[in-house]
Amino acid sequence: MKKSEFSFIGDIAKMFNALPHHGFEPIGDDCTVIDIGDEALVLTTDMLVEDVHFLRAASSAEEVGRKSILVNISDVAAMGAKPVATLLSLSLPESAQEEWVEGFMRGYHEVSEREGVALVGGDTTASRDKITINVVAIGRAPKANIKRRSAARIGDIICVTGELGISSKGLVDIMFGDLDTTAARCHRNAQARTTEGAWLGTQEDVHAMMDVSDGIASDIKHIMEQSKVGAEIDTALIPTDYDLRFALSGGEDYELLLTVASDGFESLKREFENATGCQLTAIGRITDGGELRWVENDATIEFNFEGFKHF
Amino acid sequence: MKKSEFSFIGDIAKMFNALPHHGFEPIGDDCTVIDIGDEALVLTTDMLVEDVHFLRAASSAEEVGRKSILVNISDVAAMGAKPVATLLSLSLPESAQEEWVEGFMRGYHEVSEREGVALVGGDTTASRDKITINVVAIGRAPKANIKRRSAARIGDIICVTGELGISSKGLVDIMFGDLDTTAARCHRNAQARTTEGAWLGTQEDVHAMMDVSDGIASDIKHIMEQSKVGAEIDTALIPTDYDLRFALSGGEDYELLLTVASDGFESLKREFENATGCQLTAIGRITDGGELRWVENDATIEFNFEGFKHF
Repeated sequence: MKKSEFSFIGDIAKMFNALPHHGFEPIGDDCTVIDIGDEALVLTTDMLVEDVHFLRAASSAEEVGRKSILVNISDVAAMGAKPVATLLSLSLPESAQEEWVEGFMRGYHEVSEREGVALVGGDTTASRDKITINVVAIGRAPKANIKRRSAARIGDIICVTGELGISSKGLVDIMFGDLDTTAARCHRNAQARTTEGAWLGTQEDVHAMMDVSDGIASDIKHIMEQSKVGAEIDTALIPTDYDLRFALSGGEDYELLLTVASDGFESLKREFENATGCQLTAIGRITDGGELRWVENDATIEFNFEGFKHF
Repeated sequence: MKKSEFSFIGDIAKMFNALPHHGFEPIGDDCTVIDIGDEALVLTTDMLVEDVHFLRAASSAEEVGRKSILVNISDVAAMGAKPVATLLSLSLPESAQEEWVEGFMRGYHEVSEREGVALVGGDTTASRDKITINVVAIGRAPKANIKRRSAARIGDIICVTGELGISSKGLVDIMFGDLDTTAARCHRNAQARTTEGAWLGTQEDVHAMMDVSDGIASDIKHIMEQSKVGAEIDTALIPTDYDLRFALSGGEDYELLLTVASDGFESLKREFENATGCQLTAIGRITDGGELRWVENDATIEFNFEGFKHF
């Protein structure tokens, strides 16, 4: 799920840059940010479309309800903010008027309740035959806590929370009919790193942060681009029990990818793991030069969608 | 276009009321409101669905682009706030990838530029065959300026900005192939009352306010319900050049419906019209008792969708 992308519109998008910003930061992070005194609000939005992001036959209404809010509060957590509220728009065909929408709202409520997030507005409308869902999440944090993709510094440790690849392995399990594997259950009941994101927001040694939405192999490039730096990632360090392709290219893990000042890393890792019970794993380092280099125990390797090529 | 309606979900919606509100006001106005120090932010969202809200064959992409942002900034204006930013989500089938989306963005930009509103985020995604558009508008105002549907008082003058019924008359003209009437042009190039809304927000004598989205015959009921009052409207006073049914039940006029302290009304009307060049017309009065009473030059009449029944 790409954020805030109007790049395909080309010249039209540029026209918007000339408009007054009213204190909002330019597009480029998981959320847009606006200062409100000592605090900042962050806002993000995500659209889920039937037959593109979910199949009604394959996902229960509750799962779609959980997922639709989760992707958004994960983006809020990735900014170092605490999610406080959502807006929900639904367009529903006749065939999803009763049972489906009640299941959807149960799933949506389940996550809202667990995360203490209010539903403060929205819109409901008819559609011809497909369901479309749009969620906006709003987060709040002390201004100094907000973490941006653009804040990585050369020498920073690149690290990730939790384990990678479970969700995409689970999706493959489900596609092959193995509905009850650990990975399949994780895929169906993903959690966003909200406690962890808010905790990391309070740490000065945390520089850049984002959530893992398309797999770290493509997500790290957003940090590199926004921070104008390079990166070196050691595949031997990736925290995963599965094929590296799931860990690096699989989506929907909702883990956090961040860069930390190298001399602060060890104590931050210890305090983080004590405070949250979630592991934090160093997987590489921010470099100069702008390139992404993959290594395996210090030897350069090449990564593509078929896997790794060793030299 | 109904706002914030999850009433059809019944018991599920009530479950959300138990969640922490984090300073957001409960659902029930054109926008949700959150205090940020001396100021407040207001947020609203609206979803437009192809073949429900627009036909690709009947509306140009530019028109859809203008309308999708206009309905939202009209809601911001109705709170007495100044629109500052929007978030835009688009799901687009193959058939709308190039020319359509460029036209849409030109229309969206035209209104953004005229109103000085930033585009601060969004999402773009594929869809199978229909276009869905979701827009969030964010407004800002001194806290004291925010106008709510719940603030009408018994004895208030009910009034409207501009003229009613033009947009729905224009829609009928277009349906009958009369594309170039004044009303048809107004329908295609509607304007939101942003200057007027922000001006009215500064006035203590303005009590309740909302925008006219479904026609005043149904919109006034939201003010009555939220303010727990009745209303009496004199059809002889309705500012319209068209059939009263357009003026009372037609949508998309984007005018403002408001209630004003009766002893302040005459001077407020004069100052408003001087400041904005827009007319403000008294059409009735807030009453006790909770009923909506229609009169024509002081005689009670009965209004339904077929028109008026005189006693």
